Amino acid sequence: MTTQNKRKLMTVDDVHGLWAIMPTPAKEGASNWRMQDTVDLEETARVVEELIASGVDAIISTGTFGEGATLTRNEKRDFMKTIVKTVKGRVPYFCGTTSLNTREAIEQTKEASEIGCDGTMLGLPMWQLCDVQTAVQFYKDVAEACPDMAICVYANSEAFKFDFPRQFWAQVSEIPQVITAKYLGIGSLVPDMNLSQRKIRFLPLDVDFYAAARIAPEFCTAFWTSGAVCGPAPVLKLRDEVKKASKTGDWDEAQKISGQIARTYATLFPNGSFKDFSTYNINLEKHRINAAGWMNAGPCRPPYIFTPEEYLEGAYKSGKAWAELHQNLSK
Amino acid sequence: MTTQNKRKLMTVDDVHGLWAIMPTPAKEGASNWRMQDTVDLEETARVVEELIASGVDAIISTGTFGEGATLTRNEKRDFMKTIVKTVKGRVPYFCGTTSLNTREAIEQTKEASEIGCDGTMLGLPMWQLCDVQTAVQFYKDVAEACPDMAICVYANSEAFKFDFPRQFWAQVSEIPQVITAKYLGIGSLVPDMNLSQRKIRFLPLDVDFYAAARIAPEFCTAFWTSGAVCGPAPVLKLRDEVKKASKTGDWDEAQKISGQIARTYATLFPNGSFKDFSTYNINLEKHRINAAGWMNAGPCRPPYIFTPEEYLEGAYKSGKAWAELHQNLSK
Amino acid sequence: MTTQNKRKLMTVDDVHGLWAIMPTPAKEGASNWRMQDTVDLEETARVVEELIASGVDAIISTGTFGEGATLTRNEKRDFMKTIVKTVKGRVPYFCGTTSLNTREAIEQTKEASEIGCDGTMLGLPMWQLCDVQTAVQFYKDVAEACPDMAICVYANSEAFKFDFPRQFWAQVSEIPQVITAKYLGIGSLVPDMNLSQRKIRFLPLDVDFYAAARIAPEFCTAFWTSGAVCGPAPVLKLRDEVKKASKTGDWDEAQKISGQIARTYATLFPNGSFKDFSTYNINLEKHRINAAGWMNAGPCRPPYIFTPEEYLEGAYKSGKAWAELHQNLSK
Amino acid sequence: MTTQNKRKLMTVDDVHGLWAIMPTPAKEGASNWRMQDTVDLEETARVVEELIASGVDAIISTGTFGEGATLTRNEKRDFMKTIVKTVKGRVPYFCGTTSLNTREAIEQTKEASEIGCDGTMLGLPMWQLCDVQTAVQFYKDVAEACPDMAICVYANSEAFKFDFPRQFWAQVSEIPQVITAKYLGIGSLVPDMNLSQRKIRFLPLDVDFYAAARIAPEFCTAFWTSGAVCGPAPVLKLRDEVKKASKTGDWDEAQKISGQIARTYATLFPNGSFKDFSTYNINLEKHRINAAGWMNAGPCRPPYIFTPEEYLEGAYKSGKAWAELHQNLSK
Repeated sequence: MTTQNKRKLMTVDDVHGLWAIMPTPAKEGASNWRMQDTVDLEETARVVEELIASGVDAIISTGTFGEGATLTRNEKRDFMKTIVKTVKGRVPYFCGTTSLNTREAIEQTKEASEIGCDGTMLGLPMWQLCDVQTAVQFYKDVAEACPDMAICVYANSEAFKFDFPRQFWAQVSEIPQVITAKYLGIGSLVPDMNLSQRKIRFLPLDVDFYAAARIAPEFCTAFWTSGAVCGPAPVLKLRDEVKKASKTGDWDEAQKISGQIARTYATLFPNGSFKDFSTYNINLEKHRINAAGWMNAGPCRPPYIFTPEEYLEGAYKSGKAWAELHQNLSK
Repeated sequence: MTTQNKRKLMTVDDVHGLWAIMPTPAKEGASNWRMQDTVDLEETARVVEELIASGVDAIISTGTFGEGATLTRNEKRDFMKTIVKTVKGRVPYFCGTTSLNTREAIEQTKEASEIGCDGTMLGLPMWQLCDVQTAVQFYKDVAEACPDMAICVYANSEAFKFDFPRQFWAQVSEIPQVITAKYLGIGSLVPDMNLSQRKIRFLPLDVDFYAAARIAPEFCTAFWTSGAVCGPAPVLKLRDEVKKASKTGDWDEAQKISGQIARTYATLFPNGSFKDFSTYNINLEKHRINAAGWMNAGPCRPPYIFTPEEYLEGAYKSGKAWAELHQNLSK
Repeated sequence: MTTQNKRKLMTVDDVHGLWAIMPTPAKEGASNWRMQDTVDLEETARVVEELIASGVDAIISTGTFGEGATLTRNEKRDFMKTIVKTVKGRVPYFCGTTSLNTREAIEQTKEASEIGCDGTMLGLPMWQLCDVQTAVQFYKDVAEACPDMAICVYANSEAFKFDFPRQFWAQVSEIPQVITAKYLGIGSLVPDMNLSQRKIRFLPLDVDFYAAARIAPEFCTAFWTSGAVCGPAPVLKLRDEVKKASKTGDWDEAQKISGQIARTYATLFPNGSFKDFSTYNINLEKHRINAAGWMNAGPCRPPYIFTPEEYLEGAYKSGKAWAELHQNLSK
Repeated sequence: MTTQNKRKLMTVDDVHGLWAIMPTPAKEGASNWRMQDTVDLEETARVVEELIASGVDAIISTGTFGEGATLTRNEKRDFMKTIVKTVKGRVPYFCGTTSLNTREAIEQTKEASEIGCDGTMLGLPMWQLCDVQTAVQFYKDVAEACPDMAICVYANSEAFKFDFPRQFWAQVSEIPQVITAKYLGIGSLVPDMNLSQRKIRFLPLDVDFYAAARIAPEFCTAFWTSGAVCGPAPVLKLRDEVKKASKTGDWDEAQKISGQIARTYATLFPNGSFKDFSTYNINLEKHRINAAGWMNAGPCRPPYIFTPEEYLEGAYKSGKAWAELHQNLSK
């Protein structure tokens, strides 16, 4: 493999702008356990190309709604290869290599490195809850075993049963390869930034980016979004308006687009609850994306194929609202 | 493969007596992620032989403290093969094939079937929480794909984020291959038995077996234990006294041995909490087993290698207390 | 006051049979905060007389669905006086004196004692969570301040944020006035009985009584029920059949009536969840009781007056099913 | 009563600056349930006078660590009267009137109004969990019954079992008397501000004020603090530096003092957990305040008198650190 030789290890300063998370497009029939090779690689390549053309700053795949849990090893491998081949080094690409234990995570991360991924969005083994020491050691071990991979801590407490407390950030930030984190909420952002000594660029969700950027305009310069694949215009505008405001001090436009994005989310969270959303995360996100119509995410892979009809309706509306906003902004 | 041809599919009536759960013995150094082939197959064979010689009624492996989460596929395969080869059909053997999704669970269960296991102790995919429909469909799919395997539902709510509610038992009991369940507590035993129409023989923990057997002496005739590998005498006596009492109506001896077993548990659960225990389940069980000295479970596999010292002390005392009880009863 | 002079302090041996919990009947309009003197004292007296005539062994009032939280001090006082006057010492009467702090609980318990109540069903102050030491000291203080009152620990973990762990029972059982406990579930019954050295007669819910009695037929001889006020026949039969079975060893009839009672509960718990039930406990119980038609519990007091319509329907069905069972058994 | 006639009902625009929450000073011996009249009214008057002299913008009392749960009605009344008499209308004074039900809350709030309080910091009845409709109606009822009292929603989810979701803020903000809220965290601040249409000025904790003010400098102009009674200099400086920065756009000094305050908190939260802190809130806060030495909060009232020694040490250190900061800034 020569790809990774050309890759330079990323640092926290390379993390900025719009980090688009994409699903793993599924062919028709993929909800049936009998089917193998479920990934629609053609749609994969098309979406990656479109995202880069639109101006996103990085691509992430194979997290929760990216079905990291339900792809086979072969499917993951082919999917990553297609993305790396399409990206051609134009933006960083972080794949997901979360698994049930350290050795498996290392094996998958090594393979991702060989394929040419720039980093991994890495969650914790989740069968047994990790304590802080265990969680930090896990990231240390993977970093040590895969020295040319950047690491984005995948801080999803519902998925990984770990609440990512302050001591965790203080300790994990000592690992140089840990340069960013897919982060949720802004409630602990200030202490977590301080304790990690700004060695980790936290990626808030698009809808939290405005507040994060106001709190620390010089540092909070990047965010993640699953909305880019519903049509990238809203989040591109969010990125650009925040950047402008950080310089001019006039936040009105940034606040406006942030509010517009927030309104598309109104129906996405069942009962307004993140826990309820988490139970149906994959299906709700894929449903939203399919409703928006910018890409074809296809059906869900087993076992996560059922969702109450009224929840799906909320996701559908959310996708349609995003699509409308995208269209308005694209005029 | 010819082994599975000789196997007859088990029914609920084949489930009785003492079901011993064993750890996956680890060689020295197994806590380091660099090590491969960590299973001590010699100790595996010795322990299985001793368990059967002592009179246990079934063997289970590769659940939580059996490190189903942290073994490699190769290690799991070799371990199962060694057990099947040693058991030689004398008692049922259920291996664990819990994984992150339906297709992987099916692949592992098929392989277990080909190796010659009688059944699987099967938990739920745990990255995303399952709802009842998803959970039941998961067991249906595995059953359909592996028609010659019996299924023991692995009802661990901490590990699998699923609370195994009453509707689940009502529905999952309609799958003929689901004949038993590794069960926790007796709080819901009566309604769960009723709703599953006694098509599932619930296995309570050793220390709950006395109460379960009193509630339904004609049906609650089996239990699981991780204590057999700390020295089988206490749980063999428990099994035999309960059986006797069910006929005579005199429960004094059964209650006595149940109380003696309960006392060995006094220090095993940190702060008396099952949740705290669950966070360190693997290490606490292996520490207890190693302290008892009847078998060598070896070290833990990564990432689950750290545990607060005072918790380990509790496990150590628990193992020593069990060993003493075993010795007294073996005289 | 002379009433309490005649009262003899109860012991654990005085606790047996059917403990009926009754609501605090409300007059029309009681859901409006402007109304005072909301208690229907006539219905109160009638219900108490009917319960005693039917053969119940004790009466409890002013817990959760008894609206201990939402009565005024004056209303509580008048209600207790009416009950004491009606009971005339024929059965024990335990009122509820749970409040926000030790001094208030003592004041209310002293007053209850002066009125002539035999004991208090006493929960914990619930604004701040109690730890074990705090909880035990609370019961000690009330016992010391009110030496002629028996105490029934009101072990409702949802209401009082306290999980009533094993150490609590070990310690609180050292207080001689603590002779019984309104208890939920049977999951911890065996260890809790052992740790409290059988100085506390735990009262399981009617539907758990069969299992509790089978586990320890010589000790588990009493239970609580909110069903007696839906028509007492089912729970009277349960009490009598369990008593018979404890002597004969033939549990068929006891199991049958237990199952019949269980079926009336099928629709009472929203989504089969105790937590969801707890959020609407008062309204659901009063709705069930009113549907059964044996007594008139009236409307709920503020603020607990709203409940989703579909939950109320479940309660209504539950009440109707109980009434039917009562009628069949009364023929 | 003439006092309340002179009072003008406050609006959201009257809420700004530093809202100091004070404890209810207890005389020696107040931990014993036998003691009555436990409030040190002399220290009360002294502290109120000193706070106003130092320049705080409002005073709040009788919340959680203000022992609203454990004072007798007489003690509450005398305490409020002393404060009102000392304040003499110079700053707004909000007392706490949280209780177990609507009618009691109304009775206490009416009395507070007659005594001359400007508003109530009002939490929810907490025996049974409230749903959104119940919670909103509760505030409506109290507002209707006490039309001359302003209301500060006491949004403590641990105390009141209510998670104060977005729909709650959307609905409760329609009540004109609801003008502010004692708020925790900033994780939901942006949506909550939007949904309440800025009719409620949320009071974040001192340590969250910097971030809140950066997010919405024109609206987030007030905060609550239990630190003022540890020595007011740090929070006065925080208030003033944030005010300055909102105009100049230079946030360096505001960030600095915010960080200094944050460091004094490092040892206050046991295990870094808000839930663990909540279990011992009263004792930890009073211990911190007593350690700081600016006022004498005295001992805790029963039952909340016990706390693990190591937790108290953390509170002690926190108080000493605050005192040092206060002293440095007072030079």
